[in-house]
Amino acid sequence: MSIHAVKRAQCHLAWDNSISPALHVQSGDTVTFDCLDASNGQITSSSTVSSLHSLVFAQLDQVNGPVHVAGAAPGDTLRVDVLAAEPAEWGWTACIPGFGLLADEFPEPALKIWSLHKHTAEGSQGGEGGGPVPGEYGYAWFDEARGIRIPLRPFAGEMGVAPAEPGAHSTIPPYRTGGNIDTRHLSVGSTLYLPVGVEGALFSIGDGHAAQGDGEVCGTAIETPMKVTVRLTVLKDTPYVQTPHFSACNPHASTEEFYCTTGVGPDIREATRDAVRHMIAFLTAQHGLGRVEAYMLCSVAGDLRMHEVVDMPNYVIGLMLPKSVFTRG
Amino acid sequence: MSIHAVKRAQCHLAWDNSISPALHVQSGDTVTFDCLDASNGQITSSSTVSSLHSLVFAQLDQVNGPVHVAGAAPGDTLRVDVLAAEPAEWGWTACIPGFGLLADEFPEPALKIWSLHKHTAEGSQGGEGGGPVPGEYGYAWFDEARGIRIPLRPFAGEMGVAPAEPGAHSTIPPYRTGGNIDTRHLSVGSTLYLPVGVEGALFSIGDGHAAQGDGEVCGTAIETPMKVTVRLTVLKDTPYVQTPHFSACNPHASTEEFYCTTGVGPDIREATRDAVRHMIAFLTAQHGLGRVEAYMLCSVAGDLRMHEVVDMPNYVIGLMLPKSVFTRG
Repeated sequence: MSIHAVKRAQCHLAWDNSISPALHVQSGDTVTFDCLDASNGQITSSSTVSSLHSLVFAQLDQVNGPVHVAGAAPGDTLRVDVLAAEPAEWGWTACIPGFGLLADEFPEPALKIWSLHKHTAEGSQGGEGGGPVPGEYGYAWFDEARGIRIPLRPFAGEMGVAPAEPGAHSTIPPYRTGGNIDTRHLSVGSTLYLPVGVEGALFSIGDGHAAQGDGEVCGTAIETPMKVTVRLTVLKDTPYVQTPHFSACNPHASTEEFYCTTGVGPDIREATRDAVRHMIAFLTAQHGLGRVEAYMLCSVAGDLRMHEVVDMPNYVIGLMLPKSVFTRG
Repeated sequence: MSIHAVKRAQCHLAWDNSISPALHVQSGDTVTFDCLDASNGQITSSSTVSSLHSLVFAQLDQVNGPVHVAGAAPGDTLRVDVLAAEPAEWGWTACIPGFGLLADEFPEPALKIWSLHKHTAEGSQGGEGGGPVPGEYGYAWFDEARGIRIPLRPFAGEMGVAPAEPGAHSTIPPYRTGGNIDTRHLSVGSTLYLPVGVEGALFSIGDGHAAQGDGEVCGTAIETPMKVTVRLTVLKDTPYVQTPHFSACNPHASTEEFYCTTGVGPDIREATRDAVRHMIAFLTAQHGLGRVEAYMLCSVAGDLRMHEVVDMPNYVIGLMLPKSVFTRG
């Protein structure tokens, strides 16, 4: 369904606006990316914990692209509609020494390999009755003996555009132009808005996650190779998008949709304040509210969530407002 | 339905284990509390913004009680089942100078009075068809002209027990023994677990909120007088409850239930780490997981939320794990 493709090998290891585009597209075009997992293929379905000892950190968190979108200019917004996200049949979760919210308390490496086989009528991972559930990816067993399973909701942990600042910027931390935002809500059906930093936007994507909680506290999700398809559209009149915004369904309830603003930075409290500031800017610009009204609306109806707390030095905090408060759309 | 009652006047303005009980009950008893709003009656349905100028801060955030629960001893857990929460027919939201996440950017006082009249077939605040929705409290108009309305989900912002430390502790900040935890998920049907600090627990409650988002960012919710009914039960074998834990439905999807652990303290990151530590302790104690397993489960399925970020100096961060991951209950 996608007319453009970015291959596995078309990846890069830093956000850098001097990297030549892998692809040129028009605004509104759809692109499918074939992405390795965040270990860049160093971990496979047959890996053991000893594989972690030989992990080359400089190879981690590659992103595929960049894609040059015609007409995108600094100050514009790149709208990214997530149309498809297909994980591989396996995934991994690790405790990597020195990484994660409780890194000091979990000094030993650990690795878990997951089976993500597609659920079938015969499979043990399907929904009620065993068959595929429309719009759902089924479950993966965390511990089948104990009956603990995780609902799969695949998304790309890395989605971003090249920063205006020259030079190579690590793909580990998220930035105000996106990147490793590790935001679980960006599954199929969601829309991400990114502030464009340079001509052509230079969008890249990677870091397939089959499931993750807000925060990604141990430092990894269910990491997996993934094919992901997005539509890229340039927006000219949304100057309030200064950090990633997104529109998404509640992963726990497909009937509820949210608009979310974020704060991204090294100080959690200031990132939290930024998320609120950005929602106030959005509500005043798009819904005609006064600033104080908007602030109160955030307090009574907006939920603060910690989307990402492990990709140092930057945190991603989101303020998620249910769209249902706007009864006139 | 409740055999015990605590009246409006039976309130106190500090957490202090020397305060005499307003009531003595047995473990498993049900108590109904008649609570004024958090302004302690200083703001009424006819107040205007000028009322904020004369607000006596020392009178704010009173709590009703304390209730002495027979058999509770330090180290035990007090289980609090929220059985009913009935707001008044009005509420208020304010920007109070010096208070709120963006206090420096909103220096001017502001006050909004809400109508919370029960929805009827004739009313404009009802659900589909205008009638009452079972288990729902309907909506309040934030801005009827613009069609913006808020779903009401009443809860008590203050629920806590007396701390072991002697002396008077302000009711403004939350503590590890609860208090002003302002946690929106504690609506009817939820269960709160509090670590007992002193003999008899000395439970108190207050700060009625008709609705609030995670964070309560402007510093106030939809504040309202409220009658709230809880069942108080002493648990002897839950030593992992070192801060408030709770079990609750997702306010946006009544089909999904969560178990939540919290971190409470003045450093957001450390409170976040505490929330994760406490979930690991819970999962190892109650579900037999290894510590690393538990940490990974938190990462792939647990959501970090900022329940309260304005009751200085302490933050409340929660890690919410969907109960559905445990397919055997």
